[in-house]
Amino acid sequence: MAQPVKKQLILNAFVHQTPAHLNPGLFNFPGDRGRDYKNIKHWVKFAKKLEAAKFHSIFFADVLAGYDVYKGSLDPAIEAAAQFPSNDPILSIAAMAAATETIGFGVTSSTTYEQPYMLARKFSTLDHLTNGRVAWNVVTSYLESAARNLGLETQIEHDERYRIADEYLDVTYKLWEGSWRDDAILPPGGPGSPYADPKRVRKINHEGKYFKVPGPHITEPSPQRTPFIFQAGTSKAGKAFAAKHAEAVFLGGHTPELVRKAVDDIRKQATEQGRDGRSLKLIAAVLVIVAETDEAAQAKFQDLVNYGNREGALALFGGFSGYDLNKYDDDQDVRFGDEPAVQTLVNNWAATVPGSENLKWNKKTIADYLIVGGMGVKIIGSVKTVADEMERWAEVADVDGFNFKFATMSGTFDDIVELLVPELRKRDRFWDDYEVKGGTIRETLTGIPGNSRLPVDHPGARYAWKAGEDVPLYARQ
Amino acid sequence: MAQPVKKQLILNAFVHQTPAHLNPGLFNFPGDRGRDYKNIKHWVKFAKKLEAAKFHSIFFADVLAGYDVYKGSLDPAIEAAAQFPSNDPILSIAAMAAATETIGFGVTSSTTYEQPYMLARKFSTLDHLTNGRVAWNVVTSYLESAARNLGLETQIEHDERYRIADEYLDVTYKLWEGSWRDDAILPPGGPGSPYADPKRVRKINHEGKYFKVPGPHITEPSPQRTPFIFQAGTSKAGKAFAAKHAEAVFLGGHTPELVRKAVDDIRKQATEQGRDGRSLKLIAAVLVIVAETDEAAQAKFQDLVNYGNREGALALFGGFSGYDLNKYDDDQDVRFGDEPAVQTLVNNWAATVPGSENLKWNKKTIADYLIVGGMGVKIIGSVKTVADEMERWAEVADVDGFNFKFATMSGTFDDIVELLVPELRKRDRFWDDYEVKGGTIRETLTGIPGNSRLPVDHPGARYAWKAGEDVPLYARQ
Repeated sequence: MAQPVKKQLILNAFVHQTPAHLNPGLFNFPGDRGRDYKNIKHWVKFAKKLEAAKFHSIFFADVLAGYDVYKGSLDPAIEAAAQFPSNDPILSIAAMAAATETIGFGVTSSTTYEQPYMLARKFSTLDHLTNGRVAWNVVTSYLESAARNLGLETQIEHDERYRIADEYLDVTYKLWEGSWRDDAILPPGGPGSPYADPKRVRKINHEGKYFKVPGPHITEPSPQRTPFIFQAGTSKAGKAFAAKHAEAVFLGGHTPELVRKAVDDIRKQATEQGRDGRSLKLIAAVLVIVAETDEAAQAKFQDLVNYGNREGALALFGGFSGYDLNKYDDDQDVRFGDEPAVQTLVNNWAATVPGSENLKWNKKTIADYLIVGGMGVKIIGSVKTVADEMERWAEVADVDGFNFKFATMSGTFDDIVELLVPELRKRDRFWDDYEVKGGTIRETLTGIPGNSRLPVDHPGARYAWKAGEDVPLYARQ
Repeated sequence: MAQPVKKQLILNAFVHQTPAHLNPGLFNFPGDRGRDYKNIKHWVKFAKKLEAAKFHSIFFADVLAGYDVYKGSLDPAIEAAAQFPSNDPILSIAAMAAATETIGFGVTSSTTYEQPYMLARKFSTLDHLTNGRVAWNVVTSYLESAARNLGLETQIEHDERYRIADEYLDVTYKLWEGSWRDDAILPPGGPGSPYADPKRVRKINHEGKYFKVPGPHITEPSPQRTPFIFQAGTSKAGKAFAAKHAEAVFLGGHTPELVRKAVDDIRKQATEQGRDGRSLKLIAAVLVIVAETDEAAQAKFQDLVNYGNREGALALFGGFSGYDLNKYDDDQDVRFGDEPAVQTLVNNWAATVPGSENLKWNKKTIADYLIVGGMGVKIIGSVKTVADEMERWAEVADVDGFNFKFATMSGTFDDIVELLVPELRKRDRFWDDYEVKGGTIRETLTGIPGNSRLPVDHPGARYAWKAGEDVPLYARQ
């Protein structure tokens, strides 16, 4: 009898164009290339390396301003280079695409500080330049410091940001899917032959609560039209948004059991909206420290922690959570402080770290925990230990793959490529090669050849303007 | 006795990421690669070719929406691909930079539709990725169609756009020059060594009439800090803006005598503002059609015209001028119509085209004139004819170099590289190689090794924060 097909894992790299992403201070670690974040040749080399290993994609995080909650100051983040400075990742994608063929690129862009007409043009341009290998990680932006630099007196309220984002995506879908007919561009001809048929290009005439965009889209149809949609929000509004719009959802978490709840919730909400909840790719963020033996991996981890910058870790915590741990004494266990939200957060961690109930969760232990890989699970061990744990996660959490954070650039990825990937292949969990060479990121991440367009059950698909149609379905009276 | 040093010319390519820039319909010309505008490998190949010829830089034009003045419709522009569709040029620069070493890249970006904090980050990122080879072509955007797509009911009034732009540049200078001290980044060290010194990073706390930007700049000091500044405005407000801010000014015109007036005016205004007016690089836009003989060049030009799209040419005219020539009868000479501005415009042309006083300047002749290379001078002839005429321009117009438009992509540049450049070298008008290999665009365009920062007489230079200074000069009480 045929063996049941094992779940094939999506492998993704999680990076940021900054000296230290989730590894404050680690730019001092011997061999770390964090300082090369501003060198285009560094990123080209990195993309080629991960393509050679057949990674699905590289996901570029981004922030628009520094973390200044901890101590009410940006200074700790500056010293630790904790996501500050931070370059605009979208400008380097074409260079990586020109040097590779199939690996995909996820780019973070906010719906709060740029007009949808402009963002739609950016992603269509990139979709052309990459041959359909771009994903948009939709964020609404959460930093007060960014808002103040971008013309707002303060942030727009959280749920309102998601309502704006919802209409924003509608505008971009209309531009991407419904402004140019699939066959608008005409084949080459002799003198006088038109480039495109004007009857196959239409205004979208969007007039909503937040946006008024007549169109038409300024960019001709790109391979995917709508870029593959990533989302990583974990709030209630964020999950509802993901269930409606996202094609891949990135999740953090400490245990597969806890992550399973979020996974089930998102799939269920997507199904309730008429989508196939199973078709969404749910991807767990993990830090993997792998070595020949468990002991060697633990020793490597300790080595890394020793190079970390604790003040930078607390700056990251302040940025992520909005809480300033400087209010606590050095040896005070924050689980017994006066902020219930911080208590819950740290209790959730503590419950997942074996033996940590008896640890003092003070600023130092929290910083040690956060220094390498930020919040969320760390899988540290031999090749067997790590592969076993990833298989357990894949089953228990029901995730489709992993988003690898790093401790050192690019040492963490070198270890994964050299040690872990061969083991995952041996266990029939990871492909030997891309299913579609030169495919779009939608083909690569879904594993379905020819699947370059939004699925029919996606809310953007109703705007699609197919060859032969006078006007798209949605525009008919 | 030593020969007097001849003026060395700046050679620049003027392109646009669209099927037809100033050559509507020419994508049908045999061998034309206009359709490849969305292919990153096309642009990488193009940049490498021009670097091999030692061109100074490539200037990317841009528009944010289509030209819909002619016939009150976008249809003519769509058929002729007259700057529509149009991709975002900034996204391809890093790929060209990764494949080259010295050639510079000018990128058009508007001060009207993006927050200065965001634009400053984009250009700092690119300045890092290109090793200091990026120039910003500052535009304020002139299209009604763009305004409506970008959240405005109508355009901001012309002179008000320049007042906004003036404060906008001040904000960006503060971010680029005065937010990070030159020596803010610290040398690599052991565990705990800081990445940067927080005392050398400061907020700019800009509060003006139009913008409120606390900062600090999110990007660390890049090779040029402020990108080299291009400007191409020709209105009174545009020239005053150029005289204050620009380091290179791009000018169009039909005769060197007329262009000389603008050149003198800009140099004089710059000098009045305390700058060295002679240090500004004034660059004339030209279409060069060069061949072995004058006759062969004229025949080549006629061939090109035969492939052009007249409706597209009139769409370009409508976009540039705001006038709809469709109001005129087919054989009506527009110099005798009822629009004084159009009369003046066309009379100025007519005066510069030998024998054209007796021509009927109707829609067809105007379109024929505009089809290949748009408005402005065309130099058509043998290598000798073209080189003679360029030398005459350099002397009479007092320009420092030329911005080559194209009729075919990249045939026009191939002819220039193969036929014209060797002749300019023979006449000691163009260098054999870059003065500084791997230099910044400021070094390349000024020809001065080490000259990577704004000149001291530039208004942005007063914000510079040098090593050793507690705070920048401008911030002292």
